[in-house]
Amino acid sequence: MPDLTAPEGFKIAAAAAGIRKSGLDLGLLYSDRPATTAAVFTRNAFPAAPILVTRQHLKVSGNTSRAVLVNAGNANAVTGEAGMNAARQCAAELAKHLGCKPSDVFISSTGVIGRPLPVEKITAAIPSLVREMNPGGTDSFSRAIMTTDTVPKVATSRADGVRMLGFAKGSGMIHPNMATMLSYILTDAKIEFAALDKALRYAVDRSFHSMTVDGDTSTNDTVAVLANGASGVSPSPERFTAQLTEVCQTLAKAIARDGEGATKFVELTIEGAPSDEAAREIGRTIALSPLVKTAIYGCDPNWGRLICAVGNSGIPLSGEEVELFIDDVPLINGDLKVASEKLKSKEVKIRVSLHSGSGKATVWTCDLTEEYIHINADYTT
Amino acid sequence: MPDLTAPEGFKIAAAAAGIRKSGLDLGLLYSDRPATTAAVFTRNAFPAAPILVTRQHLKVSGNTSRAVLVNAGNANAVTGEAGMNAARQCAAELAKHLGCKPSDVFISSTGVIGRPLPVEKITAAIPSLVREMNPGGTDSFSRAIMTTDTVPKVATSRADGVRMLGFAKGSGMIHPNMATMLSYILTDAKIEFAALDKALRYAVDRSFHSMTVDGDTSTNDTVAVLANGASGVSPSPERFTAQLTEVCQTLAKAIARDGEGATKFVELTIEGAPSDEAAREIGRTIALSPLVKTAIYGCDPNWGRLICAVGNSGIPLSGEEVELFIDDVPLINGDLKVASEKLKSKEVKIRVSLHSGSGKATVWTCDLTEEYIHINADYTT
Repeated sequence: MPDLTAPEGFKIAAAAAGIRKSGLDLGLLYSDRPATTAAVFTRNAFPAAPILVTRQHLKVSGNTSRAVLVNAGNANAVTGEAGMNAARQCAAELAKHLGCKPSDVFISSTGVIGRPLPVEKITAAIPSLVREMNPGGTDSFSRAIMTTDTVPKVATSRADGVRMLGFAKGSGMIHPNMATMLSYILTDAKIEFAALDKALRYAVDRSFHSMTVDGDTSTNDTVAVLANGASGVSPSPERFTAQLTEVCQTLAKAIARDGEGATKFVELTIEGAPSDEAAREIGRTIALSPLVKTAIYGCDPNWGRLICAVGNSGIPLSGEEVELFIDDVPLINGDLKVASEKLKSKEVKIRVSLHSGSGKATVWTCDLTEEYIHINADYTT
Repeated sequence: MPDLTAPEGFKIAAAAAGIRKSGLDLGLLYSDRPATTAAVFTRNAFPAAPILVTRQHLKVSGNTSRAVLVNAGNANAVTGEAGMNAARQCAAELAKHLGCKPSDVFISSTGVIGRPLPVEKITAAIPSLVREMNPGGTDSFSRAIMTTDTVPKVATSRADGVRMLGFAKGSGMIHPNMATMLSYILTDAKIEFAALDKALRYAVDRSFHSMTVDGDTSTNDTVAVLANGASGVSPSPERFTAQLTEVCQTLAKAIARDGEGATKFVELTIEGAPSDEAAREIGRTIALSPLVKTAIYGCDPNWGRLICAVGNSGIPLSGEEVELFIDDVPLINGDLKVASEKLKSKEVKIRVSLHSGSGKATVWTCDLTEEYIHINADYTT
């Protein structure tokens, strides 16, 4: 059983604030000292109010935080100036109770778009959150940030005296409104902002940005890492980056496995591409193709669809030479009956070999099923 | 009843060559004089052999053709040098029977990827194709090029003495292997290549490139226009372009209506974008969002998904001000019950108003249903 307590110096809490009909819907991550904070936010043109406010806070605080406050049930997105004020009020109230500055608060929301954030419900729940925070709140927090997720997502790691504890929410598909992807990684490593930021961007490219369910990104997507230095250990940037990447990959794979209506988890390996970036782009194009995803669902080793998707990626290749494998069964001129049997597994591995360079990438996705349509068509606003 | 006979100087034929199990599968379009020919081909990185051969032919002939030969049932794609030779053999055999050069033949294929083209079956059918070609072969040709299409797609137009007759195949979704989109427009207008090419690119941007079903483009996609000048009429470039655009739009809408498993035809109008191109890109992003498409299928006026898709287009906007309408019912702060009723129609019109410029575009798509998954998952290679 992995150690799910918070890394040194962190405390965790969750509450049922009544933002949604029932259950935990408000979470708090707290550091007893300023934590260096790096974050990656949505590329959507309409970032939600909490993202805009948090960006300002990180600027003011010089990329440090003392707390993360997350609510589920309301995205506080497309809410204009009122939404900005609502996010600021929540942060200020939490700062008052923690004895820190509002700019020390990192704030996130997930849920329905375009409805006013119920600020009073959140501020009313803050005193008990602060009172009850403790190093063992991991499970409650991981549940408080769930929306369409069917399972909570937590990853933990210890290496050379550095601990990491990561949370994520997201099921890729969006019900009722959004597939907001949120992730927070707490670590007691001692690390400068520049190195932390570089490590996070590297890890996110190889995890959350390499995981795709339906291609829709939300107004609220956020990944943040808080390093409070409480372990006193300063890992080398290489070691820290490797550790962070592994934690992020564990969380990203958990999201792909939890894709709405998915019956299969798919790992796509692209090799022989002009560059790693090109390999990732080809992998993403395949992972987003409805035709590839439905073929996998139907256990159909339809390699023409894979070839088409490779060709649709926009990446120039040096030739037509492509090899395709399911596990180690070749598809082109291969035994398609054996390939079809391999596709019946819950975990499918597809390898695309391009002979156009030495670029490699791994991308995770899931199949596309009638159940996805059913879930997403039947929600009524 | 529109006049479906060929424009002046053209003849049409179709045959059952046995490339697929049954039915018509080979089509011929013939001009009694050299026809100026402009074409737009797939952007897929693996263009099929007939596309590579046809590009060479157009270069040699100086963008003129005497005939178009199209087979269904086999894509002649990912077939390497053997596929190139197969396409050349078919073109040479047809040229021999028509008394023209091989480079006067425009050749296309659609069907299964990666299997050798049955050249003998095609060459064996050519004599009867040539013998039987006539101005009335429209219906047979339109059926010979169908694959997953449920209806043949033909458009006709007459304006100021210029006739056009257009054919298309494609149902957007791809069963068994590809959603190859093919379209040929015959016209008796007299027009120079440069003007014809410009008109075709304008028309394609506003029709086939503005129609999207699942975003998968194929190795064989082709749109060509043949102008043989037999009417003796030289229309102004503006008039010709308008006429060609209308014919292409009629065909593109017919493809979107025939989307696999689709229950609704969707017309998206984007206005107030930074440019027409930006508007088209935003429209395409919305049209490809599985979440938007499933919401339309479920008659759910879930405007958060529309906003998210706008934000995912990558187009920078000057502000957050967006208005959304279904027919003329506003969605944001609107009566969602009325909007939901409107969504029950077989033809849904969605308008997105962005307040970021004067760019406009119209994009056509269809909804995403369980039936699409069913059709595409259940094919077995």
